[in-house]
This record gives sequence, structure tokens and C-alpha cells, in this order.
Amino acid sequence: MIQKLIENMKKTNAPIVVGLDPMMGFVPEPIVKEAFAEYGETLEGAAEAIWQFNKAIVDETCDLIPAVKPQIAMYEQFGIPGLQAFKKTVDYCKEKGLVVIGDVKRGDIGSTSAAYAAAHLGNVQVGSQVLTPFGEDFATVNPYLGTDGIKPFLEVCQKEKKGLFILVKTSNPSSGEFQDRLVDGKPLYELVGEKVAEWAESCMGEDYSYVGAVVGATYPEMGKVLRKVMPKSFILVPGYGAQGGKAADLVHYFNEDGLGAIVNSSRGIIAAYKQEKYAKFGAEHFAQASRQAVIDMIEDINHALQNR
Amino acid sequence: MIQKLIENMKKTNAPIVVGLDPMMGFVPEPIVKEAFAEYGETLEGAAEAIWQFNKAIVDETCDLIPAVKPQIAMYEQFGIPGLQAFKKTVDYCKEKGLVVIGDVKRGDIGSTSAAYAAAHLGNVQVGSQVLTPFGEDFATVNPYLGTDGIKPFLEVCQKEKKGLFILVKTSNPSSGEFQDRLVDGKPLYELVGEKVAEWAESCMGEDYSYVGAVVGATYPEMGKVLRKVMPKSFILVPGYGAQGGKAADLVHYFNEDGLGAIVNSSRGIIAAYKQEKYAKFGAEHFAQASRQAVIDMIEDINHALQNR
Repeated sequence: MIQKLIENMKKTNAPIVVGLDPMMGFVPEPIVKEAFAEYGETLEGAAEAIWQFNKAIVDETCDLIPAVKPQIAMYEQFGIPGLQAFKKTVDYCKEKGLVVIGDVKRGDIGSTSAAYAAAHLGNVQVGSQVLTPFGEDFATVNPYLGTDGIKPFLEVCQKEKKGLFILVKTSNPSSGEFQDRLVDGKPLYELVGEKVAEWAESCMGEDYSYVGAVVGATYPEMGKVLRKVMPKSFILVPGYGAQGGKAADLVHYFNEDGLGAIVNSSRGIIAAYKQEKYAKFGAEHFAQASRQAVIDMIEDINHALQNR
Repeated sequence: MIQKLIENMKKTNAPIVVGLDPMMGFVPEPIVKEAFAEYGETLEGAAEAIWQFNKAIVDETCDLIPAVKPQIAMYEQFGIPGLQAFKKTVDYCKEKGLVVIGDVKRGDIGSTSAAYAAAHLGNVQVGSQVLTPFGEDFATVNPYLGTDGIKPFLEVCQKEKKGLFILVKTSNPSSGEFQDRLVDGKPLYELVGEKVAEWAESCMGEDYSYVGAVVGATYPEMGKVLRKVMPKSFILVPGYGAQGGKAADLVHYFNEDGLGAIVNSSRGIIAAYKQEKYAKFGAEHFAQASRQAVIDMIEDINHALQNR
């Protein structure tokens, strides 16, 4: 799947991923009204609203972008119907040729991690049938439990050619509380980064590994260090835009080949119509506002990369 | 919910929780056959089989135990139907008066953690309706992202009187890879424990906090230290039995009042009929084998507590 991600990135010349993290407050009134008319003010109604919202944005942007990153929490909050909307979104984006990064931040031990890996990246055996539960292409994973929490994911990746982005340094203000603490003079995130590099070696594609890392855009100095610690890993970079990360700060997350990183924006794209800059589109043309925001983001990052 | 957990523990005199982590290999043939006859070899069929398996065990053990801990990964691997079986299990156990600990190990930042907290412990607003997505009583949470990943969970706990068990020291062999690393001379798990103690203060019940911790039975010396670091927190203890934790090792996880810890067993209970010790029950009486295993586990731990 890392090969497909690279191929899609080259085809679109877009080192970005759109975070499909729908909140009810982002969904324009007419879509909500229609969903409630059909399903009532229920979890089904909410799920229908966010699915229609997603679909419109995907239709309007899929020719420009290599990948999407649905954040499962935003669907899980609407219970079973919400997770059905997640699954529909995954399937639809795959049909459109997009790489789907399931932002699920799962992580457990042994057979439990194996179950999560099967759920999101693999298959499950039921009697004589082999079935696909959710079927994302990549999943984000939490490393706090160590190698035997990660290994079952690696095994599924090797078998299914799927990929991981392991949390190394997250974009939030208090990420340093544990991640920055010094262990033998080195911050914990660097230790985790070294492990990622080790795990990455066991799952190589052509030039890059199936095993990547998450490093927040909000910590560019650390991104620069981690780029070198994990040379074969793609870095998934959250925190651009809304959280404060700027394009000029992100150039060091990329390798010389212009690859090795992919920058996420969620509300900056999907709720673009709510920004002053894109207000002219109006709520009824929210998806076109998202398209324009995608174009602007690609230009912003490519411009920074050309001038580094 | 911590009050209800304590009440249930006093009523049953059982400091244990049954881990409802069903695997297809645990489910006796006739149940699988019947589920496949109705739904085919599908995700629905697998989900029906694990639900019927759970139901039989809950029916046979619910008068003896204070709580259950369904591990969501085991359901998530069967996709949407699996998660429906999870929800049915949660609802059924609550009807039976049991406290339900959702072993979900979620954790993210800001609005995303808020969505997970709503999904598992809280409610979600849909139009004019307030709806409950999954509705567990407690959830397990991963601390790697720091305070702003935990805070949205604390807010829901304060509002809804729900609880957390935050991963501090996990039971798996490689848990030490990051958790044991020394930071200013102190292992990371102790630092996390200190933060748990701080978070716990903000969510107090009567004698105990709504905020507890996970500390594996396989590291009794660390359990002894962590008991003192987090005096107001309940410790959820995985790793008894199958993973090697022994009752005598666990006494230091409890406070002098005989409370403060709750020991989990999953396959040791739900797949008891597969052990030589309980083989006499046979697969057809698997739930009675689970009942006997519960009785034996309670006696084992209470005996150790009386002799400490």
C-alpha cells in the first residue's frame, strides 16, 4: 500500500491527505434536514448526515488528492450507525482510487492487537469464509505497550501489504508530558522513533517501508530530528493549519526525493466554507470550498518545498 | 459508577471482573452451527455466535461477580455485526446489574478524545435528542498523548459519574520497552501513575476516585509501588491466570480496606471448559465450567487476601 500511496502522490503532485473528521456542526443545514426527514433525530439520522457530507467532499476533491484519513472517533460517537458511515466512507474512497488511512489509534497486546489488525487492515476467518471487517489501507497505532503490541500489526501488514503510522510525537500541546521526557539523555519520542525504524526494516516496500510514523506539524525541530532517525518511514503530519503548523516548517519532514511525508488537514479542508477566506462559496457550495482549500494547501506546501 | 462498583464488590465479596473476550475457537460447536444456520458463514453469523456464548456465561455467573470487561477488539474484528454484539453484551450486562468496563484503550487529542468519551461513556446530541452510543460504565484509556488527551474523558466522567482505567503498566512481556525507561531516575510508569493520581483528585467518589489505573498482575513489585503512588485509584489488574499472575502476588494491589483493586480473568473463565481442571463439564456445559472457574478464582484471591 505504500507503493500505491507514493504512486498516488506522484500522480497528483499533492503531498497531502484530507482528514474526514465530520462534526455535526460542519454539516450544512439542508443535508442535516434531509437526513433527519428520512431517519429522524436518531443516530441513523446523524450518520446519514455525515456520510452525505463526506461523499460530497470526496466527489469534489478525489481527483486532486492521493489519500484520505477518516478519524474513527468522529463516527464511533454515533454508535453502530456512525460506524456504518465510517465503513461506507472507507469503501467509497477506495472505489475512487484513494488510499485510506484509518485514524484509529488502536493498540493492545498479543491476540488483542491481532484482532484490531484484522479488523482494520486484514481479514477474519468465519467458518470457510475469509471476510473483511473494515478494510482500511493504513491504520494509526499507539506504541505505549511496546513491541508485542505492534508485532501483530506488522504481521498483517507483511501479509496484506497494508501499512501503519505509529504515534511518535503527537501534535497536541501536552504531547511533551510523557513523549519529551529524557531517557538516557534522549527524549522518549526519539526512542520510539528508533523502534519505528527497526520495525520499518521488517516491512519494506521499494524505497520506503510500510511502517510510518505520526509526527505533529507543531513541533518542526523534532520533525527534523525524527526525519533522520526514521529514514525509510513515511511521516504522517497532523497539525497543519487549524493547529498552527505552517508549510515552511514542514519541509524538513520530507526527504530530498520530495517524498517521505504526507501532511494532513481536516477541518481546514472539510469546513473550509466556514472560513472568511472561502465564505464566498456559501454553505450550499461547501464542497467546492473544500476543493479550493485543497488546491491552496497543495500550492502552499509545494511552494515551500520548492524554496527549501 | 465507582460507588456502584464498590457496592457490587461488597455484595458479592468478589474482587474480580470477568473479561468477555470471545474468540471463535472458544465457542462450542452447537452454538456456532446454529448461528451459521441462521446467518450463514458471515460476520453476522460470527457475531451471533459470540453473543450467544457471552449470554450463556453472563446468565451463569452474574450473581457471583460485580463486573465484566468486554474487550472491544474481539468484537471489532467482526466489523459492524461484531460491534452490534458488543453493544448487546454491554446492554445485557447492565440489565443484569453488572458494572461494565469497556476495554477500548482509546486515546487521542482534544475534540477527538471528546468524541471517544461521548461514544463510550457519555451521550451525543442529535438535533433535539440526547442519545447514548455505547454506554459502558468505565473505559480503559491510553495516556501516551498526555493531559489534553485525558481531559475530555475526565469531563465526561465528572458529568456522567462514569469512570476510567488509565494504562500505567501493562501486563505484556515487552511493556517495559517504553514504560520502564528511567526519567530523572524514575520509571515512566511511575510518572504516569503520578499523573493518574493528579487526575484522580479531580473526580472523587466517596473514598475512591472515578479515575483508576491498569497495572498488570505480571509485575507485582511495580504494583506494590504504584498502589502507594495512586492511593485513591482503583487498580484494574489484567494478567491473572493465563498470563502467569498469581493470587499471592496480587495482595499488594489492594488497600487495607480490602478494596482498591479488581482482578480480571478472561480466557481462564470464559474458556474454562477447555482446561483439564474443568474438562468434566464438557463443551455442552461450558457456562457451568465458567461458573466453577469464577468460584475458584474468588476463593483463590480472597484466601490470599486473608493470609497477607
